[in-house]
Amino acid sequence: MNWINDTIKQPSADHHQQASNRQAILTKPPGSLGELENVAVRLAALQQRDTPSLDAAWISIFAADHGIAEEGVSAFPQEVTKAMLGNFLAGGAAINALANLQAAQLEVINVGVKQCDEGFEGLIQQSVAEGTANFTQQAAMTAQQLSQALDVGRDAVQRAAVSRSDIFIGGEMGIANTTSASALACAILNLPADKLVGAGTGVNAQGIRKKQQVIETALKHHQQQLNSPLSILQYLGGFEIAALVGAYIHCGQIGMPVIVDGFISSTAALIAVNIQPNLAAWLFYGHQSEEAGHQHVLAALKAYPLLNLNMRLGEASGAALALSILRAACQLHQQMATFEEAGI
Amino acid sequence: MNWINDTIKQPSADHHQQASNRQAILTKPPGSLGELENVAVRLAALQQRDTPSLDAAWISIFAADHGIAEEGVSAFPQEVTKAMLGNFLAGGAAINALANLQAAQLEVINVGVKQCDEGFEGLIQQSVAEGTANFTQQAAMTAQQLSQALDVGRDAVQRAAVSRSDIFIGGEMGIANTTSASALACAILNLPADKLVGAGTGVNAQGIRKKQQVIETALKHHQQQLNSPLSILQYLGGFEIAALVGAYIHCGQIGMPVIVDGFISSTAALIAVNIQPNLAAWLFYGHQSEEAGHQHVLAALKAYPLLNLNMRLGEASGAALALSILRAACQLHQQMATFEEAGI
Repeated sequence: MNWINDTIKQPSADHHQQASNRQAILTKPPGSLGELENVAVRLAALQQRDTPSLDAAWISIFAADHGIAEEGVSAFPQEVTKAMLGNFLAGGAAINALANLQAAQLEVINVGVKQCDEGFEGLIQQSVAEGTANFTQQAAMTAQQLSQALDVGRDAVQRAAVSRSDIFIGGEMGIANTTSASALACAILNLPADKLVGAGTGVNAQGIRKKQQVIETALKHHQQQLNSPLSILQYLGGFEIAALVGAYIHCGQIGMPVIVDGFISSTAALIAVNIQPNLAAWLFYGHQSEEAGHQHVLAALKAYPLLNLNMRLGEASGAALALSILRAACQLHQQMATFEEAGI
Repeated sequence: MNWINDTIKQPSADHHQQASNRQAILTKPPGSLGELENVAVRLAALQQRDTPSLDAAWISIFAADHGIAEEGVSAFPQEVTKAMLGNFLAGGAAINALANLQAAQLEVINVGVKQCDEGFEGLIQQSVAEGTANFTQQAAMTAQQLSQALDVGRDAVQRAAVSRSDIFIGGEMGIANTTSASALACAILNLPADKLVGAGTGVNAQGIRKKQQVIETALKHHQQQLNSPLSILQYLGGFEIAALVGAYIHCGQIGMPVIVDGFISSTAALIAVNIQPNLAAWLFYGHQSEEAGHQHVLAALKAYPLLNLNMRLGEASGAALALSILRAACQLHQQMATFEEAGI
């Protein structure tokens, strides 16, 4: 996995300046389009275009199971990962509806779902293993498995690039993965579990305490190993989360902007940015999730979430929705008249 | 203006219940689509449809001048109202770009802009007068003018209905109209001017103090008359604000959902809801504006603003952007599979 350390592209300072200059002379009070102006200027710098555009959007959903599910940390049984994978492929999930609405290309990748090796037409099969190990007992994955999962993310971005996509959106599915993401965020941010653990798909107060205990146990058990972002990812992560980390980093390496989704995706982004600080420039944040830990992860990333609609679904849904905001920013930047053009 | 008191339609309780039931069995953790679920359920009840949809969207921009501008309360000269009207018609303004993006029908109405009676192709000419009177000196408009301006709003909604629009968005343009809207909100909410006055298009701290003084003067001068929503609107309002009030009320009367824009539009909504409390069910709120007073107006309306992007432009821009969110809510409600359909 040496590629992980390859250089991240620099946004174009010239295009940033030109886009800022243009925003200042469009027919509106300066700054009155708020975050839409920042988005347009950042995208111009990233795409190195006078008028950024996001016509071709790509969505990769990474699905995997989690050994930690056997601790009873989720409101849903583990089989739901596989069942939802079928739902993605049949077009019945939230992300399918949103991908249709946004005319985005959607692909689904099996990075490690149990008993999914056949019978799923259209599924991209890159399973690392049938779920991670229970990380209260041992490392969630081996170094080799981590490397493989990171590569799965890179591969998805390469497919997006071949298809000439303008923006990459990653999503995840995996029963118990808020527990993994919470553990990762605790380790990276050095915060206690009670700050970062939320209801996930819908456990009650007792379930939240259970998740906290499981995480505290794991953090103690592995404390000697939690000394680098990649090691933290290996010991506490999930295959789909590692795939997101690899995908985000590769986006920065090839110069493809990203919309990060909710809590789990943002935790992947946090790890990716800890590995490659320059990656931050390439990441937009789709929304503020209702999941409790998300605000802490976003704060650590100095992220501006574009939406805040109390969503907590994952599967890239918040990022896919936020694509509308980024596209509007592009449209305004391109189509609005300057004061001079309008004779004002 | 007797029509103002005609009955507001009741949303369908049956469709509300059916849509809630459907949201509970779609393939996602219950509640995980957050505000998108509420939007879909409300729209189903308003449109009396199993699957609400917002394909045909209508945007009316009402433009008028304000006598209060002569007090020097705006960062821009009064002529900019007329100039921006030209920009709307030429397609160069922010709302043009957003209407294009959303495939929405856009019309522009002159409710009282100075020196605009000819030479503007495509402009709907319904001028009440060449600007309101300076409301520190006298009532902003006569009762007859108020009635006319309310009718202008109703007329726009009737055009939207004839064109079979699914949703109505109103916008406004009028130099100095944040001063008028702030005065209206002060009078309705019984709050002091320093709570509600903001920078508008961009005045500095001194300009904000000036606006506050102007408003305090007007509130004192007219205090005997500020005893009903319509009287407040007459004494402190603007023609474009009155048109929005008329439009919103007529939307409720004929059963057309509305997306309210920012501070000025929300102040119009506040007046409309004070006249017709049942109207509240028909109003969605596009965004939380950066204009200081907006949060107080939204709080009084118990509104949930769908976006918060530090915008403060007006001209329906925030509402037009939020249409993406409402459409996504419809798409999800319609297209997602139930757990039973997905075999989960």
